[in-house]
Amino acid sequence: MVKTPNIYTLVKGASEGHTRLNAFDKALLNANVGDTNLMRMSSILPPAAEQVDVSEITLPKGGLIPLAYATIDSTTPGQLISASIAVGIPEDDREPGVIMEFEDHAPLTNVEEIVRQMVVDGFEYRNRKLKEIKSLGIEHKVERCGSVFAAAVLWYK
Amino acid sequence: MVKTPNIYTLVKGASEGHTRLNAFDKALLNANVGDTNLMRMSSILPPAAEQVDVSEITLPKGGLIPLAYATIDSTTPGQLISASIAVGIPEDDREPGVIMEFEDHAPLTNVEEIVRQMVVDGFEYRNRKLKEIKSLGIEHKVERCGSVFAAAVLWYK
Amino acid sequence: MVKTPNIYTLVKGASEGHTRLNAFDKALLNANVGDTNLMRMSSILPPAAEQVDVSEITLPKGGLIPLAYATIDSTTPGQLISASIAVGIPEDDREPGVIMEFEDHAPLTNVEEIVRQMVVDGFEYRNRKLKEIKSLGIEHKVERCGSVFAAAVLWYK
Repeated sequence: MVKTPNIYTLVKGASEGHTRLNAFDKALLNANVGDTNLMRMSSILPPAAEQVDVSEITLPKGGLIPLAYATIDSTTPGQLISASIAVGIPEDDREPGVIMEFEDHAPLTNVEEIVRQMVVDGFEYRNRKLKEIKSLGIEHKVERCGSVFAAAVLWYK
Repeated sequence: MVKTPNIYTLVKGASEGHTRLNAFDKALLNANVGDTNLMRMSSILPPAAEQVDVSEITLPKGGLIPLAYATIDSTTPGQLISASIAVGIPEDDREPGVIMEFEDHAPLTNVEEIVRQMVVDGFEYRNRKLKEIKSLGIEHKVERCGSVFAAAVLWYK
Repeated sequence: MVKTPNIYTLVKGASEGHTRLNAFDKALLNANVGDTNLMRMSSILPPAAEQVDVSEITLPKGGLIPLAYATIDSTTPGQLISASIAVGIPEDDREPGVIMEFEDHAPLTNVEEIVRQMVVDGFEYRNRKLKEIKSLGIEHKVERCGSVFAAAVLWYK
């Protein structure tokens, strides 16, 4: 059984690349998580997990890192792409928080508004009191082949 | 290296939601696995893993939980969506079992029949003797934005 | 926290099956990783990881195995499908390598050329010196329902 993470960091990145996977890889590097093995999961914040800045943690090179993320790519020049992540923190820190991710061919303001509302909904149907929402996102205008990425990375202190 | 799980539970859920991800999140809550971080994987039952009821295990809030699942969503009012999971148990309990997942815009009877046949096939081309198949599924008629989910959750006792 | 893997093996497989998931399952068996639980991740080679042959490692039955993979399936008789994986090894073995995966409805020569170039790119924009590229791939002509799979499996010695 894998130990439950106790810290998290919100990160974002955007990039062009020669292929869709290279653009995604460069977006990860831009977000400072590019030399790790990301394990995507459905998205709950462990109770009382502490937020840290990505600069405060040292992810092992090639290490297996759990995270929740939004991503979208496009090869249509001039198209807007946006990805956003939002974390809802509960009033009672013995309860877990809710992480939501959303991405679209749309301006970030729209995408971030939607992902924040998704967190509000997630607390409402859990009957859990919401203390605050933290969100982060990124918008990119595609040149030839672009990718955006926004994530809540879970880790250990 | 992550320890190999030794128990499993079959769960299912369905829900409407304001967005596709919220509908999925509520389907997970309906299945009693909604406050965890689900790590999806390709789908083998460890040898001699014991079946338990979901009520018998306490998944850590926000914990990293390995599982195999079927899911499908739809925003077409009136459409049927079904997800089903099947587990084939081998005669020789030193051998692993096979987990199959299937989902479609179709009645559950069709979907569950297919997923059970997939398990039969999986044993046939492994030349492994099949003792029994356990399956579970769920059907939902979409109102506005619906999601169904059926899973084999792997865990530890 | 999951321990960072220190060995890797490149594997490939192809198969027909009665369903897409059965074809994929048989392709995994063909690649000698079919009775495990594969956890897909974004794709970095841990520093100084050693290459081994798949026959040299014993993956636990039903065990949770981290890997990066390319896969594609098709139900169009006569169509070519190819999947290829490439690993870039850095000159400085304190640095991580880069794993790229690519798949297409195309001959393997095209697909493998692209995935190798993706590794070259991945080193270039990292400003990291590339020592060599190892790649492996597989091509299959679909009869009724076919799947191909090429992977870099990470593990421990």
